[in-house]
Parts: sequence; structure tokens; C-alpha cells
Amino acid sequence: MQLLKDRILADGRAINSDVLKVDSFITHQVDIELMEAIAADFAEHFKDEGITKVVAIESSGIAPALMTAKALKVPLVILKKQPSKLLNGSLLQTEVTSFTTAKTYELTASPKFLKAEDHCLIIDDFLANGEAVTGAIRLLRMAHATVGGVGILIEKSFQPGRKKLEGAGFEVYSLARIKSMKSGQVEFEE
Amino acid sequence: MQLLKDRILADGRAINSDVLKVDSFITHQVDIELMEAIAADFAEHFKDEGITKVVAIESSGIAPALMTAKALKVPLVILKKQPSKLLNGSLLQTEVTSFTTAKTYELTASPKFLKAEDHCLIIDDFLANGEAVTGAIRLLRMAHATVGGVGILIEKSFQPGRKKLEGAGFEVYSLARIKSMKSGQVEFEE
Repeated sequence: MQLLKDRILADGRAINSDVLKVDSFITHQVDIELMEAIAADFAEHFKDEGITKVVAIESSGIAPALMTAKALKVPLVILKKQPSKLLNGSLLQTEVTSFTTAKTYELTASPKFLKAEDHCLIIDDFLANGEAVTGAIRLLRMAHATVGGVGILIEKSFQPGRKKLEGAGFEVYSLARIKSMKSGQVEFEE
Repeated sequence: MQLLKDRILADGRAINSDVLKVDSFITHQVDIELMEAIAADFAEHFKDEGITKVVAIESSGIAPALMTAKALKVPLVILKKQPSKLLNGSLLQTEVTSFTTAKTYELTASPKFLKAEDHCLIIDDFLANGEAVTGAIRLLRMAHATVGGVGILIEKSFQPGRKKLEGAGFEVYSLARIKSMKSGQVEFEE
């Protein structure tokens, strides 16, 4: 998606060869028009998949996922992060370790809102090692819901997230695929 | 707002006289059409205030705040919660203790996105004791930004949040004001 790539080049900051800051338009301050364009792209791509729910990973995934749910005219379901292994009988939960921050958290979902008949589109802002998305997929499986696809704003394709997800049979649709960020220079895949 | 009150009566669950669960349409599963109606109401109410940014408190405030920012055609700024007192020189932060959960967290904002010329509308899902919103106001003051108003989806008016905020000179506009939830019966203010 050219609009997002142009914005990353203009306002993103590669603070090292692994970490891209997009806090001025996605993660802290949110550009609403950009989110609408992103949502329109996801909705167009996934419109024939029979998606019944859009699933967001808390919290930077919420804004693009909400707009995509609006575009697809389906509800949004938010998977929440809990800091520790707090057992809660009424929630589905799975442990996720972020490779980027080395922090472990419990990703949780309420089984009331994910059913066997649900076919879900998972939306997240970044794909790196794929830990959050594979956690989301585990939760959907526990709920016997199915995955219609994974929509990502920014994929760091030099990290193994896409390979893991595609290897497990899931479609990954990323709007901007970054090949490298060496010396603070963002280079996209062709 | 009658639509929200009707929905609370239909799908909300007062699990005791203090706690109302709205997880099926606001906090876990998000009803997009309801969020659009809520945003339209906030936008209409605050349209002449010269709002330059909508400010959300992570994470249940994000969905209604995003839609309100869209309706007002201004950016959204997300105040993030950090679990512990992690000092970060590049962020503004303030400690907030939730009276409901008795948990303490650091509410943070990036000063890059809140400036002296910003006139902000704070949106949150619940108002109870007002701790989160007063924390948000402290952060806005640290950034020398001004508060144009506070928009709340559900106010528990038997708790002191509104009184605190109005006493400090802030306008509080709540879409549903709950007078009592005794015996699991939600009763609204006139």
C-alpha cells in the first residue's frame, strides 16, 4: 500500500536495524484518514472470505481493526493482554512471549464472543516473529472459531513471522513489507 | 443517549451494586454501529469547542475515541498504561490508582503529540471515581495542553467522579448516567 509506505518513509523512525517507531501516526497519535484507507484496503482484500468477526490484539491493533470491522460491517472482538498468569475460569488464555521485548504476557479472549461458526480476520499493527498472532490463532482454535486471514500493517519480513504463519497454512496480507532497516534506512520488499 | 441506555438494559449485566459488565458491546466485543452513534453524539455536543485532539485512555476508551476523532476530523492521541514505575525520559507520566481494582499503574503520554496549542477532548468508557480522567488531565497539564471537555459513555453517578471533575472546573458530558445498580437493577438518572 503506497500511502502507508510513503508515510513510513516520511514519519517513521528506524531507531536501530530491528525497531521502527511509528508513534506519530499509528501507535500513540493515530491518523484517522490513514486508518480509513488501511481499513478500506483490508476490507477489499478480504471481502469474499465470509469474515464474521474482526479480531484485534490489544492495544495498537484496535484502531485499524475497528475501522476494518466497520468497513466489513462485522463486530470487533478485542483480545486483551494480562500482565501475569492470572487464572480466570471465564476466559480463554494463552501465554505469549514477545521476542522483541522479552516480556511474557497472557493473551485472553472471552469465549462468549468467539464461536465455532465465526470466521475471523486477525488485524495487528506489526508482524515480526509472529508470537502475538500465533497466540491469537491458539485462542481462536480453543474457541473452535476459524481464521479467515491475517492482516498486518507493517511486516518486518527479515524476521520469521510470515514464514511461521504461512507454514501453518494461514494467509498473511501485509500493507508494507520491510526488507531491511540497516543504518536507519527503511527498504521495502519489491 | 437513549440508544446506549436501551443497550445497557438489554445486554449489560450489573454483577453487583458497583460493577456493570458491558463486554458484549463495548469492552470486549465492540458494536461498531453503536460506536458510530456515540461518536456522532459526542461530536455534535463538542463541535463548537475548537477541539484539536481527541485523547483516549488505553484501552477500552480507544474505540469510541477513534470514532469521535473521525467525526470531529482531528487526530486521536492514546494515553498508555504501564504496569510499573518505569522511568522513561521521553514520556510524561503520572501514577493512577484505580479505586475499583485497587491497582496502581503509570498513565503515560508522549509530549510530542500534546502541545500548548492543543485543546483536547478526553473520552473514556466509564466514569466512577474519576481517577483515570484526573490522571489524563494531569498529563495534559504537564504538556501545557488544555482540556475542552470530558466525554463519558457510562457514568456511575453514585460514585464521586463527576463531582471531582466539575469541582475542578471541567465539563463532563456522559451519555448514560446510572443512579443505582442495587439488586442488579440498573436505574438511570432522570
